[in-house]
Amino acid sequence: MTDYNSRIVIEAVDPEIDSGRFPIKRIVGDQVLVEADIFAEGHDAVAGVLQFRHESESAWQETPLQPLGNDRWRASFEVSMQGRWYYTLQARVDAFSTWISDLSKRIDASEDTAVDYLIGARLIEDAASRTEGASRKRLQEWAAALSREDPSLEDRRKLALDPEEIEQMRLLPDRSRSVTYPKELAVVVDRPRARFGAWYEMFPRSASQAEGRHGTLEDCINLLPYVASMGFDVLYLPPVHPIGRINRRGKDNKARAGPDDAGSPWAVGSEEGGHKSIHPRLGTMEDFTKLIAKAAEHGIEIAMDIAFQCAPDHPYVKEHPQWFRRRPDDTIQYAENPPKKYRDIYPFDFECGDRRALREELKSIFIFWAGKGVRIFRVDNPHTKPFGFWEWAIAGIKKEYPDTIFLAEAFTRPKIMSRLAKIGFTQSYTYFAWRNTRQEITQYFTELTRTGLREYFVPNLWPNTPDILNEYLQFGGRPAFTIRLILAATLGSSYGIYGPAFELCENTPREQGTEEYLHSEKYEIRIWDRDRADSLRALIGRINRIRRANPALQQNSILRFHDVDNEQLLCYSKQAEDGGNTVLVVINLDPYHRQSGWILPDFASLGFDSDSSYQAHDLLSDARFLWQGSRNYVELDPRVMPAHVFVFRRKLRTERQFDYYM
Amino acid sequence: MTDYNSRIVIEAVDPEIDSGRFPIKRIVGDQVLVEADIFAEGHDAVAGVLQFRHESESAWQETPLQPLGNDRWRASFEVSMQGRWYYTLQARVDAFSTWISDLSKRIDASEDTAVDYLIGARLIEDAASRTEGASRKRLQEWAAALSREDPSLEDRRKLALDPEEIEQMRLLPDRSRSVTYPKELAVVVDRPRARFGAWYEMFPRSASQAEGRHGTLEDCINLLPYVASMGFDVLYLPPVHPIGRINRRGKDNKARAGPDDAGSPWAVGSEEGGHKSIHPRLGTMEDFTKLIAKAAEHGIEIAMDIAFQCAPDHPYVKEHPQWFRRRPDDTIQYAENPPKKYRDIYPFDFECGDRRALREELKSIFIFWAGKGVRIFRVDNPHTKPFGFWEWAIAGIKKEYPDTIFLAEAFTRPKIMSRLAKIGFTQSYTYFAWRNTRQEITQYFTELTRTGLREYFVPNLWPNTPDILNEYLQFGGRPAFTIRLILAATLGSSYGIYGPAFELCENTPREQGTEEYLHSEKYEIRIWDRDRADSLRALIGRINRIRRANPALQQNSILRFHDVDNEQLLCYSKQAEDGGNTVLVVINLDPYHRQSGWILPDFASLGFDSDSSYQAHDLLSDARFLWQGSRNYVELDPRVMPAHVFVFRRKLRTERQFDYYM
Repeated sequence: MTDYNSRIVIEAVDPEIDSGRFPIKRIVGDQVLVEADIFAEGHDAVAGVLQFRHESESAWQETPLQPLGNDRWRASFEVSMQGRWYYTLQARVDAFSTWISDLSKRIDASEDTAVDYLIGARLIEDAASRTEGASRKRLQEWAAALSREDPSLEDRRKLALDPEEIEQMRLLPDRSRSVTYPKELAVVVDRPRARFGAWYEMFPRSASQAEGRHGTLEDCINLLPYVASMGFDVLYLPPVHPIGRINRRGKDNKARAGPDDAGSPWAVGSEEGGHKSIHPRLGTMEDFTKLIAKAAEHGIEIAMDIAFQCAPDHPYVKEHPQWFRRRPDDTIQYAENPPKKYRDIYPFDFECGDRRALREELKSIFIFWAGKGVRIFRVDNPHTKPFGFWEWAIAGIKKEYPDTIFLAEAFTRPKIMSRLAKIGFTQSYTYFAWRNTRQEITQYFTELTRTGLREYFVPNLWPNTPDILNEYLQFGGRPAFTIRLILAATLGSSYGIYGPAFELCENTPREQGTEEYLHSEKYEIRIWDRDRADSLRALIGRINRIRRANPALQQNSILRFHDVDNEQLLCYSKQAEDGGNTVLVVINLDPYHRQSGWILPDFASLGFDSDSSYQAHDLLSDARFLWQGSRNYVELDPRVMPAHVFVFRRKLRTERQFDYYM
Repeated sequence: MTDYNSRIVIEAVDPEIDSGRFPIKRIVGDQVLVEADIFAEGHDAVAGVLQFRHESESAWQETPLQPLGNDRWRASFEVSMQGRWYYTLQARVDAFSTWISDLSKRIDASEDTAVDYLIGARLIEDAASRTEGASRKRLQEWAAALSREDPSLEDRRKLALDPEEIEQMRLLPDRSRSVTYPKELAVVVDRPRARFGAWYEMFPRSASQAEGRHGTLEDCINLLPYVASMGFDVLYLPPVHPIGRINRRGKDNKARAGPDDAGSPWAVGSEEGGHKSIHPRLGTMEDFTKLIAKAAEHGIEIAMDIAFQCAPDHPYVKEHPQWFRRRPDDTIQYAENPPKKYRDIYPFDFECGDRRALREELKSIFIFWAGKGVRIFRVDNPHTKPFGFWEWAIAGIKKEYPDTIFLAEAFTRPKIMSRLAKIGFTQSYTYFAWRNTRQEITQYFTELTRTGLREYFVPNLWPNTPDILNEYLQFGGRPAFTIRLILAATLGSSYGIYGPAFELCENTPREQGTEEYLHSEKYEIRIWDRDRADSLRALIGRINRIRRANPALQQNSILRFHDVDNEQLLCYSKQAEDGGNTVLVVINLDPYHRQSGWILPDFASLGFDSDSSYQAHDLLSDARFLWQGSRNYVELDPRVMPAHVFVFRRKLRTERQFDYYM
């Protein structure tokens, strides 16, 4: 492994996740910026290239590395298409650059340089032998001219340092002793929806507008204009499969269901079918494919819920009893997290003897639905299935359907969440629901955007879910929903809400101290009045249109928090990678009181000159403000509008800069 | 590579240098503390062990990992002998611990546990099958008892949670699906001198006490009591080989030597011999081995200078002309760093066709001197030779002579210095000579002791060398030498001075703006009056005795800087790993003026109760102070003594705690 002649070191490559074990994530069209420490022993000049290729090509493309000082080098490449890309680095001692540099120093020190021209001529002759035709001839002539001793040293100096000739040499590097970084690092490149999208979660069985009627996929189609009016990109449906009858849970999570109770959609499977079937009361497979097509007409993609567990009456239980663990009393082990028991579902036993067939069958569920046109899967509790299974399954599915997106619904310990993102989940649920104060938000989002996580953990922020009605929403009323909506939509390029509970500000928990909803849709069908006057529908539509219009809000990598002198106010900015679009959010985190304070945005970090004036355009209120200097006063009443979402325009200062002057 | 069934993840192992490419460094008797993130999917309990072995053993020893929370685990092992050690980690899902934990939760929740005892009995039967004899019988009986349904649940509960039986199970873990970390990480374990030692550099040819007489190795033997009186552990001699005559440099680095000029010892080789010869005017090989033996009687080891370069008249140049690069005018390429030229030395061409023989010959030089008894090599300019060469050579030499220590004399860019330490150099010169202000010192030593460098970069601090007389010493007089001595000796467990220039406070540069000495010993023989009254000899002896008596000063890993309200004062502490010895240094960095201020040591970080009183014993002045509270006043006059070197003793506060009370 050790090369005893090796002179060049390439190390501290960034990005590189776990020594290259895992890929980084990017979106089609992104620039991948790569840095590395590169150096050799001694004083010789070093040069190198960043090499990159799409998985479909075997030849590397390359771009020269630029020195940043202190032996750090940088280059970037564009990932212009979906799929896996690879990158690595190659570097070499650059004898010709060393010669140019040494010669220049000697000339400056008025030293004898006669032999130096001969040394240079040799290097040029070597380069000539690496090319052909006119290029070779030109270099040979240059070498011959440099070798002649009759011209004055001044003439030889000019000849040696001729920029055009030097450029010829740069194109013909001596790579015979180039060192290549031993790892090929991977980039998973997805379509833009993998990073940017507004999600709307809705129970299809509650899509009926009439009390007592089970909602259908047809009802969902009828609601598409409603969802589209709010500007959502993804419509996510909880499981649409038949629901088990054995041990079915009752309303409000009661242990036993009444005869008319609908059961939890996550208790998948009954005599009517399993993970590849549609619940008969929702409709048919044709209705489902029609929903996908109709949604597409509204610019909406359907995301499907994949929950790998079975109701006791799921067909798998009879057909593949070996996939489930049996207890000593010969009953099947139901799901539990002691002392919590989930008797309406059986987990799969991934360690069973028939695990290979089990794995294949589970993967085939994704493939089945992908075949129906689904490309976004929200995976239920992936952290309770082996990491190895997911890594294998996701890679296999993406091979057949490269545009598939997987959202990991794992609310668990930080290192497990991070691992799921590394092994292939495109996006991840987060702790956002439990980050409500300024310090909590600043700390969490700094971690997400400033550490290694930024390379592979793509957050999808949910202020609520059918399982999570946090205390902030329970007690803060409509202002709390407004605040959490704006935070989610502007802090994360992907976010989602569970509606209509969200836009209708549903905030009653089943009991004190729980985050479960009263009359939770997980266990019963609800009929919603979507046209209520106090609905947040219009604001949600406005926010989602702002997101679509501002590239700064479509990525997570350039997020900055700015100082405010009031703890209840939070100020942050996002900026498009090209610097052309800058959004600054100031938000009152207190849902009860008007708050005011001075914000001190770090304009320099945004590339703005703090001496200039700027037009701050509040996209929520459409008001425009002239900002001068770095301190600016804000006052926000949560009952009116808890936030400003500013976009900045440089204020043109003299008549010469007026548009109409030109 | 991917195990699709794998449930266990082991990652973020610390220490681990560059994904395990390089070993960490330790001293015989050290504890190696290892941490890792370990987790599995789901809710099952996890257990693991740290495995370790000396290179001479093939079997692993192991010690259980302890959980630190947040999926972090830790264990340590002692490296009890010299050589290479290896460590790795093994972890598994622990079904039995999971069962105990789940059972306890169910009992607490008053649930039906009847089936649980049967599940536990199965696990116990499995464990019984992994053992034999009495142990198997005992487990089988326990399983049988747990399986009986006639005892009350209360009795079955007691039986299941019997601590002695549980302990039996812990000794018989089910490792059938254990996961082993895929890397074996290495530790290079050296003898204590690799970390702790006071070095004294001295030119043997200046060891003569008589004007006009060339010093000899015999003179060096006569000076051993002098060196020993100052408490030095290592006597380092610049090259002792014949010195080239061709292009020999004159006094004060003049381009041409006069007929009587002695030349630079680093221009190695002449007709009298090369790297394996002793300069005839210094003495014979017998004198050299006698010096090693006599030094050992004084507790002093001889360190030898290895400079891989040749004077033009070195025998290698005639015998192996292919080892040197020729220029187009057929002259051999001398050493240079344009526009600087070193015409008295030729570098080796490590890229020559005969490089394999060259490498072997160079390695044989170390082996030759190791055969004469040398075990410490100070390597001149290793950063101008290939990294690959050093990695190969050092590993090979240590295979034959495992107690060899290599000090890298590389004053170059940070990443190159770090690389040399990674590839095998035991110790490294540092930027210490150019770190003189409080901020410079704090920043540099924080980097050395708080980043990954601490695992492999062992600093050896030199306030001066024959090449480095820094401005601080040039202008600060005797107080400056005192300050730099105390800093070097207390900040670094290894440090050295170049004498007698140092103890005699020699501070005249060759000219303004250079760090070179006037009348540098590199180019001429000097006669020193070692008995001058203003010599720092006594203080040096005191400092070195303090170092030997205080384990805190014999390591670098627990260094802390403390607050002082005067920028000219620096306060820091070192603490022995067992916490039993704490040294606190307060030093005035201003060599011109008395400075005073309040120091605020972070006593809590030192494990002291800041409410108690402490006896601070100044080991330099032998004064004892009673310290109470965290603020303490100090006043230091650099002309008297610029520092306190306190050792702390807990002041016993009540009569019950007096020693004589017991």
